[in-house]
Amino acid sequence: MIKKILIANRGEIAVRIIRACTELGIKSVAVYSEADRYALHVKKADEAYSLGPDTVAGYLNAHRLVNLAVATGCDALHPGYGFLSENPELAEICARRNIQFIGPEARVIRQMGDKTQARDLLRQAGVPVTPGSEGNVTDLEDAVAVADAIGYPVMLKATSGGGGRGIRRCDNEPELRRSYGRVISEAEKAFGSAEVFIEKYIGNPRHIEVQILADQHGNVIHLLERDCSIQRRHQKLLEIAPSPQLNDEQRQLIGDLAVRAAEAVGYTNAGTVEFLMDSEENFYFMEMNTRLQVEHPVTEAITGVDIVQEQIRIASGLTLSFSQQDIRRHGYAIEFRINAEDPKNDFLPSFGRITRYFASGGPGVRTDGAIYTGYEIPPYYDSMCAKLIVWAPTWDGVIDRSLRALQDIGVYGVKTTIPYHMEILRNAEFQSGHFNTGFVEAHPELIDYSERRDDRAIAATIAVAIAANMGL
Amino acid sequence: MIKKILIANRGEIAVRIIRACTELGIKSVAVYSEADRYALHVKKADEAYSLGPDTVAGYLNAHRLVNLAVATGCDALHPGYGFLSENPELAEICARRNIQFIGPEARVIRQMGDKTQARDLLRQAGVPVTPGSEGNVTDLEDAVAVADAIGYPVMLKATSGGGGRGIRRCDNEPELRRSYGRVISEAEKAFGSAEVFIEKYIGNPRHIEVQILADQHGNVIHLLERDCSIQRRHQKLLEIAPSPQLNDEQRQLIGDLAVRAAEAVGYTNAGTVEFLMDSEENFYFMEMNTRLQVEHPVTEAITGVDIVQEQIRIASGLTLSFSQQDIRRHGYAIEFRINAEDPKNDFLPSFGRITRYFASGGPGVRTDGAIYTGYEIPPYYDSMCAKLIVWAPTWDGVIDRSLRALQDIGVYGVKTTIPYHMEILRNAEFQSGHFNTGFVEAHPELIDYSERRDDRAIAATIAVAIAANMGL
Repeated sequence: MIKKILIANRGEIAVRIIRACTELGIKSVAVYSEADRYALHVKKADEAYSLGPDTVAGYLNAHRLVNLAVATGCDALHPGYGFLSENPELAEICARRNIQFIGPEARVIRQMGDKTQARDLLRQAGVPVTPGSEGNVTDLEDAVAVADAIGYPVMLKATSGGGGRGIRRCDNEPELRRSYGRVISEAEKAFGSAEVFIEKYIGNPRHIEVQILADQHGNVIHLLERDCSIQRRHQKLLEIAPSPQLNDEQRQLIGDLAVRAAEAVGYTNAGTVEFLMDSEENFYFMEMNTRLQVEHPVTEAITGVDIVQEQIRIASGLTLSFSQQDIRRHGYAIEFRINAEDPKNDFLPSFGRITRYFASGGPGVRTDGAIYTGYEIPPYYDSMCAKLIVWAPTWDGVIDRSLRALQDIGVYGVKTTIPYHMEILRNAEFQSGHFNTGFVEAHPELIDYSERRDDRAIAATIAVAIAANMGL
Repeated sequence: MIKKILIANRGEIAVRIIRACTELGIKSVAVYSEADRYALHVKKADEAYSLGPDTVAGYLNAHRLVNLAVATGCDALHPGYGFLSENPELAEICARRNIQFIGPEARVIRQMGDKTQARDLLRQAGVPVTPGSEGNVTDLEDAVAVADAIGYPVMLKATSGGGGRGIRRCDNEPELRRSYGRVISEAEKAFGSAEVFIEKYIGNPRHIEVQILADQHGNVIHLLERDCSIQRRHQKLLEIAPSPQLNDEQRQLIGDLAVRAAEAVGYTNAGTVEFLMDSEENFYFMEMNTRLQVEHPVTEAITGVDIVQEQIRIASGLTLSFSQQDIRRHGYAIEFRINAEDPKNDFLPSFGRITRYFASGGPGVRTDGAIYTGYEIPPYYDSMCAKLIVWAPTWDGVIDRSLRALQDIGVYGVKTTIPYHMEILRNAEFQSGHFNTGFVEAHPELIDYSERRDDRAIAATIAVAIAANMGL
């Protein structure tokens, strides 16, 4: 079993991983930029080391992180999400230095990072992918021929792209001809590669993803699906498990496809297979995330499996201690990303000092956070500072409980996405359980909430006055 | 369905009930003594009314509370636990004023509050009770005859007693003769009744209790059992669900007995049937608690049922929406009572201002609390200020996670039972899952912990210095 883990990350996910280490009796080593000196992950780890004054470079320096792991006697490294979590070189350096990388092999990370290679591999394995080019397109005329064959609209995409860059929707041939050169030059500049491919454009799909776990002995299982259709500009806002818009047959199908995908690429450790579901309810493989995801807790809530502990057990060489049949679905869970942002001001980050923080609590409520009263959210990183995860036996119940749990939280000193989440929960289309990735754009009225006041405090004050007059 | 509830309580249980109301879309009305003006339940309720300067009298004034419920348009009253929760007069006044009392009928509260009546009723229903007198003993000679018949040691108990008063263990006849007069006069003084009864003394029993739910249409089910054997001077310190010391056959037996008990007395709403298990693993009915219990969340954690919501549904006249077969057991849960007490100083209350409070979090962790940074714990009430509830799939897992979750909490400004709980968790006998009510007394070394320092902060400081010297 692994004995000591360097956590090459920060914020809530570093805290989450430290908690798993503590429960397993494994020592944890945190790293931090000087801007993160007072961060919660630094306080909670068994040891913590400064990466110096640079705010981001330290978290992105694979050699330095692995050196530190070796120097502090670690036998493993957990990359979290973001930063270097899908960087195959970090996995390779770990392997060379005899540090167990908690994730899949570098080869798999690299293959799944190359979008055409991933598409081709999974198509061969019988997993449906969106219609499009086999491999990259060779030139403009090849692109036009592929688009003609599958029909417009199409997406022209940089093979090494990501984060919404190097991607263009083309509704007809002239548009494709105009965009081709631009996407190539954008891709060269941003990713150092001129390779592009074409796929069919799917309008307003549902985003459904399947959590998988695979040990080093050939056992692959899935932990059901998550619905991540509620997004704003391709950023997930909240995530749900299981999807309220799948029936049991679809659930079984997508789970089987995810396991087949993982088996086809020789996947190990925890991973996520992302699918799009179109308006005719066809599934298409989108991409495979070769890391722990932000939204893993909703899966934990409905299955009872601690995914981070399982990651560590798998990296230690242990066999999965449960089989597919042991995975049962209990109720519904929603994760809310609490971002320090002002929804009314175009979701602009709202960094600064948290003057007061009250956590939520009560039945069915989990908080994964990195904030506390007095903590100053540094402006250099992601604005997500906490996650609220709510569980209830039914879909209606989880909506009611979520509204209550969000009302329970108090974050003062910065603006947050809390009131926006409450508006989503009150929306009838959301409550119906049927929505797609166009939901946020279709509901601009969601930001028309009145600024959060402490209504109950006001009501209480009035009530006290009434009571006094009544002589109660 | 009930529309507005007056919560005749304070502290964490008032907050717990408000949360259930909010999730059900029911308005909540809080009450508070002036000492509780800044309490969390006052902030969270839809309305809140002062009961005046007296610290306790307001919470114990049934007429005033029901008047307030009527005056504020409530159609129901929830008594919580403690205070008037097992006072049949409150239930009667509610009935007369057309306020739905959220609990069983006054008749049942009264019957179960009379210990000999409860024993006799349940014995007739075929529920095993400890050997002893049928009804009260008539005089000293009757007491001696009963004790001779069942054998010493025996317990001489006041029929209306409670809270450890009016109760005496007698190991032989001379002791019984000496104690008889004393217990009678103690009972008269404390409870206004000279009635006493005798039962067999059970040495160091296990304390096992079963949660039951009964609607107004004759449906009675149980929600499995809790193990409350870890007590100090008859006060529960932590509670476990399910009991790690029962096998499935025993679990089924005790569940069936509890349902039989509830049916025999015409029970409605939520209640608890308490049993003692002796060293030969015989069960004996001890008493029935006709209210919500402090430890109800561990049952919620392993069954997914929201007991407070069910109480409200039952009081609204709804039929139970699930049957016994729907109740499945998932993993293990432990509740830790976080008391503002100093274990090293004979658990003396440690009231005062909470200068800083960090809640626990992460997977499997629930907090039910009434504290926040800056809150001053008033010295007039119970020292329990928060409850930590931890769930994990296995018994070993819940111990590991509990240690982590307790380590995560930060309560500064007052002493708490947190370090004492951690010592219990590290005890091999506790870990074995086999212990009885003598556990705390048998382990005086549990208070020999070193005062909690922030070891990790110190380690981090040292580590930073090392790192600097290593030129990392």
